[in-house]
Amino acid sequence: MIKVGIIGATGYAGNELVRLIVQHPDAEVVWYGSRSYIDERYADVYRNMFEIVDEKCLGEDMDRLANEVDVIFTATPQGLCGSLVNEEILNKVKIIDLSADFRIKDVETYEKWYGIKHKSPQFIKEAVYGLCEINRDKTKDARLVANPGCYTTCSILSIYPMVKEGLIDPKSIIVDAKSGTSGAGRGAKVANLFCEVNENIKAYGVTTHRHTPEIEEQLGYAAGEEVLINFTPHLVPMQRGILVTAYANLKKDVTYDEVKAIYDKYYKNEQFVRVLDKDVCPETRWVEGSNYVDVNFKIDERTGRIIMMGALDNVVKGAAGQAVQNMNIVFGLEENTGLQQVPMFP
Amino acid sequence: MIKVGIIGATGYAGNELVRLIVQHPDAEVVWYGSRSYIDERYADVYRNMFEIVDEKCLGEDMDRLANEVDVIFTATPQGLCGSLVNEEILNKVKIIDLSADFRIKDVETYEKWYGIKHKSPQFIKEAVYGLCEINRDKTKDARLVANPGCYTTCSILSIYPMVKEGLIDPKSIIVDAKSGTSGAGRGAKVANLFCEVNENIKAYGVTTHRHTPEIEEQLGYAAGEEVLINFTPHLVPMQRGILVTAYANLKKDVTYDEVKAIYDKYYKNEQFVRVLDKDVCPETRWVEGSNYVDVNFKIDERTGRIIMMGALDNVVKGAAGQAVQNMNIVFGLEENTGLQQVPMFP
Amino acid sequence: MIKVGIIGATGYAGNELVRLIVQHPDAEVVWYGSRSYIDERYADVYRNMFEIVDEKCLGEDMDRLANEVDVIFTATPQGLCGSLVNEEILNKVKIIDLSADFRIKDVETYEKWYGIKHKSPQFIKEAVYGLCEINRDKTKDARLVANPGCYTTCSILSIYPMVKEGLIDPKSIIVDAKSGTSGAGRGAKVANLFCEVNENIKAYGVTTHRHTPEIEEQLGYAAGEEVLINFTPHLVPMQRGILVTAYANLKKDVTYDEVKAIYDKYYKNEQFVRVLDKDVCPETRWVEGSNYVDVNFKIDERTGRIIMMGALDNVVKGAAGQAVQNMNIVFGLEENTGLQQVPMFP
Amino acid sequence: MIKVGIIGATGYAGNELVRLIVQHPDAEVVWYGSRSYIDERYADVYRNMFEIVDEKCLGEDMDRLANEVDVIFTATPQGLCGSLVNEEILNKVKIIDLSADFRIKDVETYEKWYGIKHKSPQFIKEAVYGLCEINRDKTKDARLVANPGCYTTCSILSIYPMVKEGLIDPKSIIVDAKSGTSGAGRGAKVANLFCEVNENIKAYGVTTHRHTPEIEEQLGYAAGEEVLINFTPHLVPMQRGILVTAYANLKKDVTYDEVKAIYDKYYKNEQFVRVLDKDVCPETRWVEGSNYVDVNFKIDERTGRIIMMGALDNVVKGAAGQAVQNMNIVFGLEENTGLQQVPMFP
Repeated sequence: MIKVGIIGATGYAGNELVRLIVQHPDAEVVWYGSRSYIDERYADVYRNMFEIVDEKCLGEDMDRLANEVDVIFTATPQGLCGSLVNEEILNKVKIIDLSADFRIKDVETYEKWYGIKHKSPQFIKEAVYGLCEINRDKTKDARLVANPGCYTTCSILSIYPMVKEGLIDPKSIIVDAKSGTSGAGRGAKVANLFCEVNENIKAYGVTTHRHTPEIEEQLGYAAGEEVLINFTPHLVPMQRGILVTAYANLKKDVTYDEVKAIYDKYYKNEQFVRVLDKDVCPETRWVEGSNYVDVNFKIDERTGRIIMMGALDNVVKGAAGQAVQNMNIVFGLEENTGLQQVPMFP
Repeated sequence: MIKVGIIGATGYAGNELVRLIVQHPDAEVVWYGSRSYIDERYADVYRNMFEIVDEKCLGEDMDRLANEVDVIFTATPQGLCGSLVNEEILNKVKIIDLSADFRIKDVETYEKWYGIKHKSPQFIKEAVYGLCEINRDKTKDARLVANPGCYTTCSILSIYPMVKEGLIDPKSIIVDAKSGTSGAGRGAKVANLFCEVNENIKAYGVTTHRHTPEIEEQLGYAAGEEVLINFTPHLVPMQRGILVTAYANLKKDVTYDEVKAIYDKYYKNEQFVRVLDKDVCPETRWVEGSNYVDVNFKIDERTGRIIMMGALDNVVKGAAGQAVQNMNIVFGLEENTGLQQVPMFP
Repeated sequence: MIKVGIIGATGYAGNELVRLIVQHPDAEVVWYGSRSYIDERYADVYRNMFEIVDEKCLGEDMDRLANEVDVIFTATPQGLCGSLVNEEILNKVKIIDLSADFRIKDVETYEKWYGIKHKSPQFIKEAVYGLCEINRDKTKDARLVANPGCYTTCSILSIYPMVKEGLIDPKSIIVDAKSGTSGAGRGAKVANLFCEVNENIKAYGVTTHRHTPEIEEQLGYAAGEEVLINFTPHLVPMQRGILVTAYANLKKDVTYDEVKAIYDKYYKNEQFVRVLDKDVCPETRWVEGSNYVDVNFKIDERTGRIIMMGALDNVVKGAAGQAVQNMNIVFGLEENTGLQQVPMFP
Repeated sequence: MIKVGIIGATGYAGNELVRLIVQHPDAEVVWYGSRSYIDERYADVYRNMFEIVDEKCLGEDMDRLANEVDVIFTATPQGLCGSLVNEEILNKVKIIDLSADFRIKDVETYEKWYGIKHKSPQFIKEAVYGLCEINRDKTKDARLVANPGCYTTCSILSIYPMVKEGLIDPKSIIVDAKSGTSGAGRGAKVANLFCEVNENIKAYGVTTHRHTPEIEEQLGYAAGEEVLINFTPHLVPMQRGILVTAYANLKKDVTYDEVKAIYDKYYKNEQFVRVLDKDVCPETRWVEGSNYVDVNFKIDERTGRIIMMGALDNVVKGAAGQAVQNMNIVFGLEENTGLQQVPMFP
């Protein structure tokens, strides 16, 4: 039984980690870390857990945690994991960081986009970017996994085959993304009140959103050249779900069947990536509560562009589900262990 | 492996049955019956099932079904199960009927409230009313289980201990219930369009809703006398969830602790009924996607009344989940097999 | 032109006051008071007002306000108006208080239910309870109008004719009310975040909600005897709207036509109260954005009860609209001036 | 008093026309045309109109209508207006067509994208494309006004100044649009049920949506050259509102101030187009219920692109509001008559 500690257990991603691990046959949560709710019963903070989780919330003592658990999930604001981790801890325990601290290899890029000083740049190189479908081989031996961002996972998996095969102009990529509100976290902010979010859609972080360099870096590895994109996130009045609509110029004429074969090449054996049937657009409702990413594409011969689309549940494949998937890889379990939830509809 | 046939597999309750049984270790769906979608791939009707269910939809041939499956779930409009069932079928296969056809023992009451002629009144007596927490002993040997209504399950479980113990005046009970929109089904009706349901709340079926006599009959058994209630359902702009707020006159002064002890007497050993802590009101979000019913109460000394509250997921404990729970009982499995989903939030 | 000052202009009710008065032919806002946003442009707080309102937010200096405006609306937390008002101010300016400070005539009741000490009990007696349809004659000469609560307005107008005519047992009244989330205000609280409110319904303040004594007092005047009710509010995932479903025991057998005649007696000449056609239930969507209250009833011969229902927009007739209606009465304008907005759907 | 006839009065756009004209000082609806609800009271179909509109629904007899009204609004499916209009009717009455029949000047393009044969191509040339801010001079003398599409209005007004001034490459334009569900109409379709739309976002009509050629044609006039765009609409779980996020390559380096000056050049004197302050993104909630379009832009120096954004209420400026604005122009009224509703929030 893998002993799990969660730092940030009372955020939405933290609660989803609890939901998944409670149902995981080979893991159990033994530490519910939460700065805001220390000594409160976890089930008083998240009443869905009433009579399921009896424990109280604890603090963020990573040294102590390292002695008591096998793996630590840090579902915390940027900067925290970077400030807590050290060599001694990494020698004792696996860390799967759901924040951005170890996602970006270039520390200057990180510090510029996030506006904070990185506290542990010495671990950036060894950290494995935990996009399972692409990096699972490296993840197997990782001490420190940088769990990808929600927008990033959806964007990269939607676009990756086309970039990897060199079929689109990497300078022409535009990612227009839409997210449910759980991505904004459980902080008490006016902007996230029901009456502010409901009956509204808006773009935010236009040209400046922090997931931009993360997408660019990973797609750059696939392209073998620098990638610059436009990334525009939008807030949608729903709880869960990310939809990506990405546009790029095709480098040459291609048919549906050719592109379909390319997507299948990368994803046919991936349980959690579903390449939809022709002309079926991904929708967030069909993946809700599950670890699936649904992807598809449409070629526009009039404009010479391809529209690539993807949908996932931001709290599962975009956060906690992928983190558990990474845990499974790190500990040598079947990758889908505890992650076979069927999407719930409606 | 229990072979399951579903008639009405493409309604919302049908889809939830599929979701639950796909994840059930001891059962599998072998017949996806759907009058409207015969020969279409099930996963084209419910794309959450893409790459999970490969089968096509079939018809409603109950004779053939009786030879091919161990249990038939009928998630169909009122009257259909009653018109299909017969002695030969019941000798071959278990039937769990999610419609109202066999819930009400008095056929005249059924025909009056539902406005249809009952086609198989000869089976009403033997049918077991499958409210598991109350009738599980009888269900074990049933050939035909009448799966309770969604409002009914929530109403009865909220009120039952007080009626059973004779603490409230059974003539004074008022049930004000609120339901998500999935309870209205997947039929294409203007009244259920997004723009009609959203940003709205309304009562409907005031004094005439068909769950009224079902609640009255069952509470009458508990009370040992006739029960007449007011039952008012409301449509709420959400997908899943039923909340019941019930009012009754207390027959004598009671304390919180006394009433709490009574609720615990009936529910302490029930996995799926959670009696909440003092002053915590049930909320539908905390049971979403799960088979739980959360109940609680509040005594009002000023008016001499008690307010009894309950929340459940109408598609799970109010329909498919309870049906699977009944299947487990009928087939001698642990009652919670395949039903241990943790409520999903948000 | 009536000069209007608003204290609490940046709450939801305050913003609705601005919306209504901007469109009012005989009034204009000259003071946008807001403790939280002093010196910020009002249109930066509420961008719907961009290029419509150019003013900046000011403070709560009621003495200065009294010299500069003709009427002050206080859309503020309980206790503030009571702490600011004095004889000198009341001699200079009309006050319409949207808080509860002057609604309840019995100061002990106020202090018990609200848990605060009343600062100006000397003005309670002269304050007029501004439920226009019932108290408009008194309001004409008022210096201080206590604008009724949102739940209260809906509850009283739904029940009033039956109580006034002595047709129901005033001890048997149960009010089950449902409200949109704007009623919870614009404060940054976790409980009001989109992800907490959406896909959920819950009761709150069960047996303890502060609108209870307000309803009891006003219905008591109508009944000519003490009234004790059960009042249970619920939070619904929508922005605007209150629906009341009220239950009471009929004192004698009555027909639909008899009761309809009674409702018409009180409301036929009321522009803002619409008694719906037989069997039509009030729905919040049909009054959204308007000053209407839709009411109707249903007699249940089985149980000897009547179900009385009402729907209004909590921000309009439940707050700002009724406040403007009171202003119109106080200043001798046509009561519907600036209040003839047609309900907006969808 | 302008006598107004509406064909299609019981659709969402039709109901909004009624709402606006009921409040219009110089116009009145005298004909509520509705194929589906003939002889039913209009207020029974839309209960917001109870005690406001007493008339019953009538049919679609355009010849009779032409004798009885001054202007006909056709808020009907594509093809209907084209099949009803003729020279005699146009000599008697103004027609403002909310369908697409007369929007596209090239009849082949119309027939290709809409898949229907045009019944009155002889009137296409004289029809004025009623995008008021751009074509008001031509509209003054029009007999037949083609009221623009909802997506189209938002897209064109967001992009127009940049195309007109030649600052962006017209071949590089990508329009990613998001719409509330009222745009899908009031037809009873499974796809538009609450449970299907809620908690979901999806693209639809990818590369094939019919508003594409309309945008291309109008932007082509502004550019003085052919324009080909990618246009991708999305369905958002909200009632009203369209948000456009458009991307294009800048032809040369420009500063914020330069671009702002260009937007101001075209819109400073337009009451219904609000160019927002720097870095403020349009949001649909700030225009709800009003005739405003909020626009803004953001320059991305990294990629050399500009992101142009716009928000409007699809039922008002995207349909009924613009239609009334066109009526005002045609009849020589102040353009904003009856259209000064302040956006409603929340």
